[in-house]
Amino acid sequence: MSTNEERKSSKTQENVVLIGQKPVMNYVTAALVQFNGGSSEVILKARGKAITRAVDTAEILRNRFLKDVKVKKVEIGSETITIDNQTKNVSTVEIVLSK
Amino acid sequence: MSTNEERKSSKTQENVVLIGQKPVMNYVTAALVQFNGGSSEVILKARGKAITRAVDTAEILRNRFLKDVKVKKVEIGSETITIDNQTKNVSTVEIVLSK
Repeated sequence: MSTNEERKSSKTQENVVLIGQKPVMNYVTAALVQFNGGSSEVILKARGKAITRAVDTAEILRNRFLKDVKVKKVEIGSETITIDNQTKNVSTVEIVLSK
Repeated sequence: MSTNEERKSSKTQENVVLIGQKPVMNYVTAALVQFNGGSSEVILKARGKAITRAVDTAEILRNRFLKDVKVKKVEIGSETITIDNQTKNVSTVEIVLSK
């Protein structure tokens, strides 16, 4: 049971690309690898300043590399992070791409 | 006829908040003014690095000021801009908020 759930959760994680501070092409490549590996859906997740990079990743991917990829859903939200006892709100974005 | 069309297009522009490089609270206030002026829908538009600020604006507005505001739609896209004969792609975002 627990093995099943673990497998399921690791599978869910597989098609998620977490967007950070690296050059945008790194994330485009990561998403490409996911799609070429058979995923029909890839989720780009970002927060804070990386949000712009997530949108760039989606746009470069579908305009230059995989013309049949569509933006299925874009969700925005907030997360509260605590650094040195200071809480701070940070915006998040989730872009669901599908073939 | 033309007057009508002008009026219509100026009305469409009224509930659009263009997000730029100013502090995020400026845009939160601008959107608040729109909603309080009777708009049931406000569109936040941004491109490039301002995309993060557009998401921040939407989140601050609905978490702190107008709890009944929902994110109706988020659309992403690209625009080609030409500066000094160099074309450059820039990502865009449109966040439709509604009460």
